[in-house]
Amino acid sequence: MTISMHSASAPVFVRMFTNLLAWLDKAEAHAAARKFDSANYLGLRLAPDMLPFTRQIQIASDAAKACMARLAGVDAPSWEDKEASFADLRARVQKTIDYVKGFTPAQIDGSEARTISVPRRAGDPLQFEGEVYLKHYALPNFYFHLTTAYALLRHAGVEVGKADYLGR
Amino acid sequence: MTISMHSASAPVFVRMFTNLLAWLDKAEAHAAARKFDSANYLGLRLAPDMLPFTRQIQIASDAAKACMARLAGVDAPSWEDKEASFADLRARVQKTIDYVKGFTPAQIDGSEARTISVPRRAGDPLQFEGEVYLKHYALPNFYFHLTTAYALLRHAGVEVGKADYLGR
Repeated sequence: MTISMHSASAPVFVRMFTNLLAWLDKAEAHAAARKFDSANYLGLRLAPDMLPFTRQIQIASDAAKACMARLAGVDAPSWEDKEASFADLRARVQKTIDYVKGFTPAQIDGSEARTISVPRRAGDPLQFEGEVYLKHYALPNFYFHLTTAYALLRHAGVEVGKADYLGR
Repeated sequence: MTISMHSASAPVFVRMFTNLLAWLDKAEAHAAARKFDSANYLGLRLAPDMLPFTRQIQIASDAAKACMARLAGVDAPSWEDKEASFADLRARVQKTIDYVKGFTPAQIDGSEARTISVPRRAGDPLQFEGEVYLKHYALPNFYFHLTTAYALLRHAGVEVGKADYLGR
């Protein structure tokens, strides 16, 4: 018995996005208790030349969507980045969860050695074997943006902790 | 062909810690250019009730060490948390890389269904199947602390970016 490509990808995205929905709940509760508009979180940045909260979540969403599509060898749908409220962000996260859940193990398994091509803004596409793409590009890229979103909420005083991050 | 437990764990830790060493280089260059002591990074926090930079790296180190030891069914060595300089942090990271590299695939593979027990400060230990432990506890916990360390440097003005995070 070993790990399948589906098992190493889809449940990780689903679980972490489900955790993210609970962080959003805590962020809204914090905003309500302090009497500020939860939309104030959307533009928060850890540095002025970093992307804001909304973009971190949009990119985490795109990272998971692209990963599943590439491993399955299908075209990912393009989703407009127009989220402007917590309700919009929740809907985007839920749409991503549903998209990931739409892939069967049969569509993803066997992609370990498939060549995955990742387009870049400039230059030739990056090329990876499927397993390398998942482990060293797609998952770290996903965790990068998801953890930055978490850090922004934590930095803003939201009472989230490790248990919320891991979703235990 | 599928992913082995060794392949899903050891190379991820080694690559991300190797990337971290390069972030430390950039942080030191930033400190030198701005003429401040790189030890000033060690106590940085994203919030006053979050752990500081040094602890984020120590915990990422412990997370990788414990993951490899638990999957192999051996006792992890205890490492004193006494790092007080960038040189100390580099040595800790390198020691972790060497420890992870010391495990052979044969020691780790086959641990998918093994019961992994994680002690807690209070209450009964958490129990996981090996694959669940790796995907939903050990790796996210590792990424959590590693990305927080990255975010602290980025927040402090160090010129690191996504390519440094991913190590392309």
